[in-house]
Amino acid sequence: MKFKYKFLKTLSNPNEVISKVSSALRIVPNVLERNTVESLGYVSATDIVAPRDFPPYNRSAVDGFAVKAEDVSSASLMNPIVLKVKGFMHTSDSPEKYRIDHGECVEVTTGAPLPLGADAVVMVEYTRRISEKEVEVLRPVAKWDNVSLKGEDVKKNQVIIRKGEIIRPWHIGVLATLNIAKIKVYRKLKAVVLGIGDELIPLGHSLEPGKIVSSTMYLVKAYLEELGVNVPYAEILPDNLEAIRDRILHYLSKVDIVFTTGGTSVGLKDFTVEAVKTLNPEVFIHGIAIKPGKPMAVAVVKGKPVFMLSGYPVATFTELLAIFEPIYYRIFGCRTPPKPKVKGKLVRRVYVEPGIRGFIRVKVFKRNDEVLVEPLVTTGSGILSTLIVGNGILVVPEELEGFDEGDIVEVILTKPIVEEV
Amino acid sequence: MKFKYKFLKTLSNPNEVISKVSSALRIVPNVLERNTVESLGYVSATDIVAPRDFPPYNRSAVDGFAVKAEDVSSASLMNPIVLKVKGFMHTSDSPEKYRIDHGECVEVTTGAPLPLGADAVVMVEYTRRISEKEVEVLRPVAKWDNVSLKGEDVKKNQVIIRKGEIIRPWHIGVLATLNIAKIKVYRKLKAVVLGIGDELIPLGHSLEPGKIVSSTMYLVKAYLEELGVNVPYAEILPDNLEAIRDRILHYLSKVDIVFTTGGTSVGLKDFTVEAVKTLNPEVFIHGIAIKPGKPMAVAVVKGKPVFMLSGYPVATFTELLAIFEPIYYRIFGCRTPPKPKVKGKLVRRVYVEPGIRGFIRVKVFKRNDEVLVEPLVTTGSGILSTLIVGNGILVVPEELEGFDEGDIVEVILTKPIVEEV
Repeated sequence: MKFKYKFLKTLSNPNEVISKVSSALRIVPNVLERNTVESLGYVSATDIVAPRDFPPYNRSAVDGFAVKAEDVSSASLMNPIVLKVKGFMHTSDSPEKYRIDHGECVEVTTGAPLPLGADAVVMVEYTRRISEKEVEVLRPVAKWDNVSLKGEDVKKNQVIIRKGEIIRPWHIGVLATLNIAKIKVYRKLKAVVLGIGDELIPLGHSLEPGKIVSSTMYLVKAYLEELGVNVPYAEILPDNLEAIRDRILHYLSKVDIVFTTGGTSVGLKDFTVEAVKTLNPEVFIHGIAIKPGKPMAVAVVKGKPVFMLSGYPVATFTELLAIFEPIYYRIFGCRTPPKPKVKGKLVRRVYVEPGIRGFIRVKVFKRNDEVLVEPLVTTGSGILSTLIVGNGILVVPEELEGFDEGDIVEVILTKPIVEEV
Repeated sequence: MKFKYKFLKTLSNPNEVISKVSSALRIVPNVLERNTVESLGYVSATDIVAPRDFPPYNRSAVDGFAVKAEDVSSASLMNPIVLKVKGFMHTSDSPEKYRIDHGECVEVTTGAPLPLGADAVVMVEYTRRISEKEVEVLRPVAKWDNVSLKGEDVKKNQVIIRKGEIIRPWHIGVLATLNIAKIKVYRKLKAVVLGIGDELIPLGHSLEPGKIVSSTMYLVKAYLEELGVNVPYAEILPDNLEAIRDRILHYLSKVDIVFTTGGTSVGLKDFTVEAVKTLNPEVFIHGIAIKPGKPMAVAVVKGKPVFMLSGYPVATFTELLAIFEPIYYRIFGCRTPPKPKVKGKLVRRVYVEPGIRGFIRVKVFKRNDEVLVEPLVTTGSGILSTLIVGNGILVVPEELEGFDEGDIVEVILTKPIVEEV
């Protein structure tokens, strides 16, 4: 029996960890060509440019009558101008269908091309049809009023989606409008999650005394899946240095990112960190200035990251949010997508040791239209109930020791705000 | 040729539309039993209660030595208390492994059960091991310090997930901890999207003059998929009342929700609204006080909703956000999940007619740490570029006519904030 406790004397600053690990990574995500309609959630691997002007020609922005603006400059309800209606143009017609001269107009539907000779559209609301062949215009229009000009929206060769943007529904709408049927995206990353501990069993097995479910492994898998990472592998390993090392080595050849949960603190059977050290990592960091989550370790081995997370769900959640997510988006050259946030008044002061970035679980609720933020009491470690009762995370920057009661703070929302306490 | 324009004289308030439609719906989502690990993004169909206390027994919250608190009440660096170490307990041990008496202690790892007789844990940092059998304690602890008490986190029969909650990664962590392997969720809803218009072609076909891609259909499909709706069907229909009616009727027997895009304004070939009217809807609303998106229509036919959306991506986006999403979450009895939001200073005034809820596309950017919100100029309809350049939506409530330059406004973020202009 050994009594070897290694204390985490120096904690690395989270921003430095993110930079150091990101710059040591040599993951180059493959580029795939995908159908635009199946690209939701993927990251664009190139700048995508418009292959044509949009609109492709001048077109009507409203339902109404395409006119020469000067013909109707004196129109009013008291002085209607009568124009001859040459015909009707729908969105499916071509601009050459009609040409108008002074005193003439063409009825147009929204999106229809502007007939030749027309330079404005009078909205149907400001006209009165007096016969099949004639319409009264009741208001003047300025030149190009109610017209979408060729290329005014998107110019040919304009960048419409930047490299590193995550494809969302409106991007698909824009790509489809421009008839871009395939785009280049990065393939999704692959990860394994290894739950480490002699006491761990898979979910759904009988809970013998001394056994616990490897719950953090499942939490990490779901967290990754929500971000868009493929997690084809998840397995439980015993507290055995050789076994841990061998499986990590095995998976480093199959996936882009390795996660372990458990075995990172300074206890007697915490072998994860030792196992990874034997793999000659290019970067190795143990102890990060975040709370909860301090004992987190991160290594870069053969250019790939190994995230050694806590065995406790709450600490793991913080570790993923604070350290993994920013590194993940940097791999793709993305900005981190915005999180739901809300500002509210803190109802009790919070304290975090200086130099540590704190992630306080809070309950955000509305009382008489005021948003209030209540820090949850967290005794002991791994307090699950804060994940159940809480609906937000208050980040205390490392420069601050906390916030005072009554301070207006910004909170990341994990669930909707609740009414009253 | 007919000259039948029906003006939208009265616009319904969006909140009233949401209530009226929601209460007329008779969609009862089926309840499925799913493996917890495959339930991400589903909605819980029941309150889920804890089948057992958690922690299941008193356990150590730290690495250290389990003691009787009174034994070490006078401990200090200058006056270390020497205790006999009876052994070591890991998380995989049972509480009965050791019993301690005065002057004794047991080394414990984080999460290990507290040995019988112990009532506190001294953190390893405040001890000094002097031999295999002895340790010096250098600080006192209070009773139950560093101990997670049985049931203190989650009590047996406590509700841990409410009916109507969307399952997120941390819920899976909590469910796994409590060894709940299967849960009851609502099956996902099924929808069809019908792109209506003679001018429409599918994405990727050649763009003959007068033809445009049914881009809004693809936008709606992606928007729904992002929310978790299954969209097995999407098809393009001509401007033909009978064809539209027949296909809607056909799909009403196959899906939960029908969407159409195009054909809802008051133009000559806008047959969608007329087609749905012939189906004897229980609820029929045409014209909603939102901008863009005014010509939107919603019907309830045979207890199912038919959303008749604009043919323009920008208007459609607003219609989905403002009207469809709130109704969708009500079907499941969910709160609408929070959106990413940010507050910033408006750099130019915005105006919306009173009584109309406005959805202004904006660009949110940071200049010298200040968040600025710039409304995008939107001339004409269907301005795609605001979906490309913009990264936010500013909602102007119907009670207001707009916001002034310099006002601090809250914006829904659709993409990350950008630095500088």
